[in-house]
Amino acid sequence: MKKIINDPSTVVAEALRGVELAHGDLLTVIHDPAVIVRADAPVRGKVALISGGGSGHEPMHGGFVGAGMLDAACPGAVFTSPTPDQVQAAVERTDGGAGALLIVKNYTGDVMNFEMAADLAGGGGIEVEAVVIDDDVAVKDSLYTAGRRGVGTTVLAEKICGAAAEEGRPLKEVSDLCRKVNGWGRSMGMALTSCTVPAAGKPTFELGDDEMEIGIGIHGEPGRERKKVAPAAEIVEMLATPIVDDIPFQQGDEVLAFVNSMGGTPLIELYIVYNDLHRFLEGRGIKITRNLIGPYITSLEMQGCSITLLKLDDELTRLWDAPVKTPGMRWGV
Amino acid sequence: MKKIINDPSTVVAEALRGVELAHGDLLTVIHDPAVIVRADAPVRGKVALISGGGSGHEPMHGGFVGAGMLDAACPGAVFTSPTPDQVQAAVERTDGGAGALLIVKNYTGDVMNFEMAADLAGGGGIEVEAVVIDDDVAVKDSLYTAGRRGVGTTVLAEKICGAAAEEGRPLKEVSDLCRKVNGWGRSMGMALTSCTVPAAGKPTFELGDDEMEIGIGIHGEPGRERKKVAPAAEIVEMLATPIVDDIPFQQGDEVLAFVNSMGGTPLIELYIVYNDLHRFLEGRGIKITRNLIGPYITSLEMQGCSITLLKLDDELTRLWDAPVKTPGMRWGV
Repeated sequence: MKKIINDPSTVVAEALRGVELAHGDLLTVIHDPAVIVRADAPVRGKVALISGGGSGHEPMHGGFVGAGMLDAACPGAVFTSPTPDQVQAAVERTDGGAGALLIVKNYTGDVMNFEMAADLAGGGGIEVEAVVIDDDVAVKDSLYTAGRRGVGTTVLAEKICGAAAEEGRPLKEVSDLCRKVNGWGRSMGMALTSCTVPAAGKPTFELGDDEMEIGIGIHGEPGRERKKVAPAAEIVEMLATPIVDDIPFQQGDEVLAFVNSMGGTPLIELYIVYNDLHRFLEGRGIKITRNLIGPYITSLEMQGCSITLLKLDDELTRLWDAPVKTPGMRWGV
Repeated sequence: MKKIINDPSTVVAEALRGVELAHGDLLTVIHDPAVIVRADAPVRGKVALISGGGSGHEPMHGGFVGAGMLDAACPGAVFTSPTPDQVQAAVERTDGGAGALLIVKNYTGDVMNFEMAADLAGGGGIEVEAVVIDDDVAVKDSLYTAGRRGVGTTVLAEKICGAAAEEGRPLKEVSDLCRKVNGWGRSMGMALTSCTVPAAGKPTFELGDDEMEIGIGIHGEPGRERKKVAPAAEIVEMLATPIVDDIPFQQGDEVLAFVNSMGGTPLIELYIVYNDLHRFLEGRGIKITRNLIGPYITSLEMQGCSITLLKLDDELTRLWDAPVKTPGMRWGV
């Protein structure tokens, strides 16, 4: 295993110290239980947006804490759900009196632990809603997951709902909006290489020198099929066809196209993918009006990419464009 | 070779089309000769900032075109200098009547071709200055380079000089500022893996499963030494010691610390490096007051990182903080 780390057992703790030292103007890191909190939390009268999940997907979620996005993120161990007490601490620490929305990726452990925390917080008198993101069209039921997995749409939901919460909209509206984003977003990913979980010390799976895995999960869960590496345009077709066929998108729809690196794939390849995706969607009569290109929801150093499409209307477009100031996404301020 | 591409010979052209389709609000792509130009160029009365170099280092330089940073970038083939006619086209296309500053990384081909373009443009009546960045303390003279190589400080110079040009400062001042940034910035990098140039189809160099290269260049040029992979804290010491000893930094100095991914190293590892770097500098009495963490000057999918330190004063800090709106760096607008 080749990584720039000191000790597999302290990877998350040390990275959190780095985040704290680098971004103290935007966020505060609580170390026990581990929670990354917006520096000015709690914000009075604002719905608190809270997410989290296993570490190893950076900048998600900790890098999305700040004005216009998340109030708190709960980082678990690498590829391991955060514990209920982390989530409970996040809810209590960010409570501005308007309740909390938990944005949860659909993995069995995450769903269970976030629900447990919601119950605990509810018992403590804080109104809490949880919305589960399940946008991965690759497989139904998977390692760690009943139903579809939650992937790229999570990033978009955190941005869009963050903007709505910032406007002072009530919990019910922000939660409904989150369900709308989940309903309108679909994703699929692929990998050229495995990643290596530090504590495991060896690759999660093996891929031949000429193979790729289509429909991979963000923890290296198996996808739909393993096949010979194909040209980018064919990869785009393999990923985008099931996405477009699923929602279904209509001719004339406008979308946000999110081309994501799994961590080890560089930007130059993502732009080739974006070029092919643009052409693919043009052929279907679908117009990209917003985009996001880069490593936002990663799987450690895995080489590969994912595509997320989110259908847009005026409301979602306006909220996407709203100012955001976090380490991982920043504009308008 | 595993990459998400269509054809090794069209990697740059296709990526440029992707950039054009994705960021048409910020920039315009001219395809022959290839130049990425700020969308509102030429800006009347403003010094034009122009850079460029081989492709494969994205987001540098094309991702830094936009308000507050570059007016144009000239992308060569992968790891290959742009041609004089690309640079000349960039100078002519962005000429707002206040002259042009060419920011050139110190590689023999780049220096030669940018100088030739400066002569051509000068002959055409446009005042042009060129500043060569040579901040890499790893080696003196290298493959492709006489003297020190130009690396991470280039990104910082483009941001800081971009802000100065935006304020309407004259060519002489912006050029002097660029020389000051180059004088105050130092870098060094390391690699865990090689990268693969698409046209070559095989890794640029071989590293054993337990080896790293200290002092690597951004094209995979050999560094200072090859040794067993060490813990992050030791890697930081190996990179930061020659940097700090070189300028030299004084106790009490304030710096911008830039921790960069070579392309294949994920953010979680960069934060571990940042944490170790913070401690290392604290031990030397040097204070980090600004930081930049992420993949900004990359070597395709190479795994590894580099550290750049830039000594700051009030002027540099203010210009660093100034608004910037480019695909790769954006804040304040």
